[in-house]
Amino acid sequence: VGDDCARVAPAEGFELAVTTDMLVEGRHFLPGADPRALGHKALAVNLSDLAAAGATPRWITLALCLREADAAWLGAFSDGLYALAERHDVDLVGGDTTRGPVLTIVITAFGEAPAGQALSRSGARPEDDIWVSGALGGAALALMHPELEEAARRLHEPQPRVALGERLRGIASAAIDVSDGLAGDLGHILERSQVGARVRYDDVPKDASFASVNEPETERRCVLSGGDDYELLFTAEKAKRKGIAALSRELGLPLTKIGSIEAEAGLRMVDAAGRPVPFGGGFDHFAAL
Amino acid sequence: VGDDCARVAPAEGFELAVTTDMLVEGRHFLPGADPRALGHKALAVNLSDLAAAGATPRWITLALCLREADAAWLGAFSDGLYALAERHDVDLVGGDTTRGPVLTIVITAFGEAPAGQALSRSGARPEDDIWVSGALGGAALALMHPELEEAARRLHEPQPRVALGERLRGIASAAIDVSDGLAGDLGHILERSQVGARVRYDDVPKDASFASVNEPETERRCVLSGGDDYELLFTAEKAKRKGIAALSRELGLPLTKIGSIEAEAGLRMVDAAGRPVPFGGGFDHFAAL
Repeated sequence: VGDDCARVAPAEGFELAVTTDMLVEGRHFLPGADPRALGHKALAVNLSDLAAAGATPRWITLALCLREADAAWLGAFSDGLYALAERHDVDLVGGDTTRGPVLTIVITAFGEAPAGQALSRSGARPEDDIWVSGALGGAALALMHPELEEAARRLHEPQPRVALGERLRGIASAAIDVSDGLAGDLGHILERSQVGARVRYDDVPKDASFASVNEPETERRCVLSGGDDYELLFTAEKAKRKGIAALSRELGLPLTKIGSIEAEAGLRMVDAAGRPVPFGGGFDHFAAL
Repeated sequence: VGDDCARVAPAEGFELAVTTDMLVEGRHFLPGADPRALGHKALAVNLSDLAAAGATPRWITLALCLREADAAWLGAFSDGLYALAERHDVDLVGGDTTRGPVLTIVITAFGEAPAGQALSRSGARPEDDIWVSGALGGAALALMHPELEEAARRLHEPQPRVALGERLRGIASAAIDVSDGLAGDLGHILERSQVGARVRYDDVPKDASFASVNEPETERRCVLSGGDDYELLFTAEKAKRKGIAALSRELGLPLTKIGSIEAEAGLRMVDAAGRPVPFGGGFDHFAAL
């Protein structure tokens, strides 16, 4: 508890990483949301948690509360879920379906990692680099500008960084997935590792869709406090830079150095001139809906 | 899928049994239900599934959807859940809490069994005895007669047969927990094992509380089709009778032989004179509320 995933050791040589996410209609998605995208996303958020733990996803269970037996809805939901599950060789091993007034989806996912190699939030050390995969802010931008198709895809069909998570075993000192926003999620690493950080805002990779809207305030808010991007945020010793650059090329996934861990507590977000850049708390999903 | 528990093998020598149950307010329990009992029951139904798989419970995750942050409610719910968890040495390893309009509880539980020794529904063979633990019908009786305290305890604080489940490894040929009613749950074993059965209704152990209500029809309906008893129903070769009697004494838990598996498909429920005893399908919990 306190990490994205709980880890348990069922037998010599292995750790099992387990995570549970609950999606409730009206809270995490709008009534009438596309069931295929919902099936994808419900699994994606769990696989993202496993990736942040450096675990190879293996199995999931699904608990589903439906208002009514709607074969078309269920078929589309299953299509979205299974397409992503197959891509990552994940088996649905159990579940429970019931009726109720509010559509609710709970997935529990578990993955494996060699014992002692799973990633946590607590291993960041002063002078470690801070890295982030892909680009940030797209999902939050899509909430404000649903007409931006690429950003909307980030929001509705996030791609969990499964391969990256597995490969970060032995490289990253700490990791988390960006589900609540960069500032908030980095805050979790800092708190658990009892360190601080300096981040250069200009270096933070921003979603390409921001180019089509000229709203610097929106951009800053989405990039620093927007959730739902499901990129990996991780720390690593400076000695790992070459290996991380090679990994980025191999996976075809940008990995960007955005700052450094420091001994002094607190998060210092600065611009190119070293001046503070304001960042709020996490994004309130409910308010955003 | 198809058994009470899914089984996965994370490493050489072990199987992991996993089960998920979802409890929704208004569907599985009444609004205003005692939170302590709810915490107990939410875990109990999952431990009962593990027991039916012959698995030793180890870990759970909890997803909880609450209408509001109510510290008193949450404290009582946690008390009920943790008291049972501690009794069985089960650790809560992860979870997710969210807000929403309908109180919803999802627990995923996993247990371990030596590889190849977990129990399933599919191993019953002709001439096997059919056994049931404890007594049946009490939980369903409590829905009709809430003033019966002992029966009410059966309904609200069921005791999962964890120790029995573990000890049935190597003894039972098939097992299931009685969650939907004797006839329905035995039907699952028969279907999965591709066999039939003859059950002597008079031999089925009935909850002691029936003595205080003189309603033979209610009794028959509760005993054969009432769910929520969470006793174990299992089959075993005749050669195991002596061992099962010894186990019953050791655990201080009645284990009663109620019939036999037969090659001919179908369930034949008979009275002392061999005449058919009618049995319906499962109990509709929602209708019962």
